Amino acid sequence: MFTFAQKIIMTEAKAYAAHSATEPLGPYSFQRRDLRPHDVQIEILYCGVCHSDLHTVRSEWGPAVYPCVPGHEIVGRVTSVGDQVNKFKAGDLAGVGCLVDSCRECHNCQQGLEQYCEKGATFTYNSPDRVDGSNTLGGYSSVIVTDESFVLKVSEKLALEAVAPLLCAGITTYSPLRYWKVGKGHKVAILGLGGLGHMAVKFAVSFGAEVTMLSTSPAKEADAKRLGAHKFALTKDPEQIKGLANSFDFIIDTVSAEHDYNMYLSMLNTNGIMICVGAPPTAAQIPAFNLIYQRRSIAGSLIGGLPETQEMLDYCAEHGITSDVEVIAIKDINEAYERMLKGDVRYRFVIDMATL
Amino acid sequence: MFTFAQKIIMTEAKAYAAHSATEPLGPYSFQRRDLRPHDVQIEILYCGVCHSDLHTVRSEWGPAVYPCVPGHEIVGRVTSVGDQVNKFKAGDLAGVGCLVDSCRECHNCQQGLEQYCEKGATFTYNSPDRVDGSNTLGGYSSVIVTDESFVLKVSEKLALEAVAPLLCAGITTYSPLRYWKVGKGHKVAILGLGGLGHMAVKFAVSFGAEVTMLSTSPAKEADAKRLGAHKFALTKDPEQIKGLANSFDFIIDTVSAEHDYNMYLSMLNTNGIMICVGAPPTAAQIPAFNLIYQRRSIAGSLIGGLPETQEMLDYCAEHGITSDVEVIAIKDINEAYERMLKGDVRYRFVIDMATL
Repeated sequence: MFTFAQKIIMTEAKAYAAHSATEPLGPYSFQRRDLRPHDVQIEILYCGVCHSDLHTVRSEWGPAVYPCVPGHEIVGRVTSVGDQVNKFKAGDLAGVGCLVDSCRECHNCQQGLEQYCEKGATFTYNSPDRVDGSNTLGGYSSVIVTDESFVLKVSEKLALEAVAPLLCAGITTYSPLRYWKVGKGHKVAILGLGGLGHMAVKFAVSFGAEVTMLSTSPAKEADAKRLGAHKFALTKDPEQIKGLANSFDFIIDTVSAEHDYNMYLSMLNTNGIMICVGAPPTAAQIPAFNLIYQRRSIAGSLIGGLPETQEMLDYCAEHGITSDVEVIAIKDINEAYERMLKGDVRYRFVIDMATL
Repeated sequence: MFTFAQKIIMTEAKAYAAHSATEPLGPYSFQRRDLRPHDVQIEILYCGVCHSDLHTVRSEWGPAVYPCVPGHEIVGRVTSVGDQVNKFKAGDLAGVGCLVDSCRECHNCQQGLEQYCEKGATFTYNSPDRVDGSNTLGGYSSVIVTDESFVLKVSEKLALEAVAPLLCAGITTYSPLRYWKVGKGHKVAILGLGGLGHMAVKFAVSFGAEVTMLSTSPAKEADAKRLGAHKFALTKDPEQIKGLANSFDFIIDTVSAEHDYNMYLSMLNTNGIMICVGAPPTAAQIPAFNLIYQRRSIAGSLIGGLPETQEMLDYCAEHGITSDVEVIAIKDINEAYERMLKGDVRYRFVIDMATL
């Protein structure tokens, strides 16, 4: 399927990039690498917009390498493959998430936990390529070239634009729910109804848990219920909070703004676990007694490995689960960032790459 | 076994008490209650000295009720029993730990997790008695009267003075190791070599784990090894710390002085759990990313319930496990507190009640 003509045509990538931490993103073009034997070249059809994109292009998580092309919720169609590729052929739907490589040799990589690679995984953008050292460039672009081991199969059953956010928001919430075996008989609270939170609700409900949405905004109650949440509680109402003491087996904390962890810890049952998938800019302040009483835990979880990401995509195809998205043209990405900062998105922006 | 004469004689308790947060403990006498139908009266032979005793008598954990008689590592011999008591008879060895009552009806009590009683357990000292509301008085005394459900059977096999600390330091470390199923194939670090830490080493080694003692004091290496630790690392040496990154499946943190949790979290493996049984006066400051990377957890654990405390005592009798103790006369208790504050005890003071 891989011909010289295709290679020449497809390696020219149109994209949107940031050139500094303070400038808006704008049009940019660059060359994708020639296909290595195990590479898959994908024409990107949709790319989700994740809060990490914004943190990175603004150098809020350390200095970014510019030009920076973000985007790690990528779905598209395979256009060509390297001569050693077995898993994909031109015409297949495919996805790329947050990871494009890892050492593949360490204990974690061997177990399919590439996100915890002991030598550090290679991220889809703003990461040095393991082969040539070049800076990885992400999904706000017309094409991507990725090793097949880090490319996911995508079902034809689901709306493709609504699948894109599964590659980060989906797996980030699916993975901890699976790791901690959340399901029937469990009471679960989801903290924060955004890109991650709305997926956490859908998965936790699908796994059979009783799900309560905790939110600061009364306007989100109707949506939470529509997404499947069984209960809703306003975290600004001290009476409602008091009534929730020792209520939950798990809390999935998707909030990346500063917040009081102790208020939520007090809502955990004996042996309850609060799982952080959002990372606020300041440290959580937790008196040890708040963990000691009731044997509570606070844990974290980072996206998911490749096998589990594929499992999640297959689960979603089987159960008709997708993200609630607002499709935008790429020229509107800077405005979308501002709206995302205000929480004004239900629940994930997705860029239609045909607008490039 | 319960006669009127015994009752009159035995309810007069000699003791040591604090009369305010700032005064040293001194001699005190008071009446133990008449036996209720399920009560067991125990002549106290030894009582361990726990850091909690000091915190409580000095009102460091909130205002204490004075006079305050601390002590919750109690062993002795049954002198008489109430007429409904089945488990004990006069002459039996018996122990009382941190708990003397609970609601007995909630989900946790029903599961033998009385320490997490949803209505609040009754502690052995400085707690209101559930029947008459009087302030509970602890083990620095000649006699105690406790409901049989909260009295433990003590083996004749072990040195009694070395059994006393099992009732708090023992169960506090045994319980989390059991709850998290620590054993063969696990690498475990014990943080802090004191009353709790030395028991944590003994149990973790006995359960088959590879145990590393983490300490700020090089002088403790020989002792750590003698207690069974396989390895020792100085936490003041940055090179040793660096070499321990991603090393442990579990860390049992017994330190109640302020310390940097993040340094220790970085020593946890993927999926590693740091379990706090010590409670520093200030909150732990933990950036969520330190949990998210490597899916780490930080948890707490409080003593243990009655069934598990009995299980621990039986396990110790079977495996010959006791605490390393320094037996003192009760007149030396105030000096012992000062030495305890300096960490100058290997590894638990135990009061010989014959010195009262």
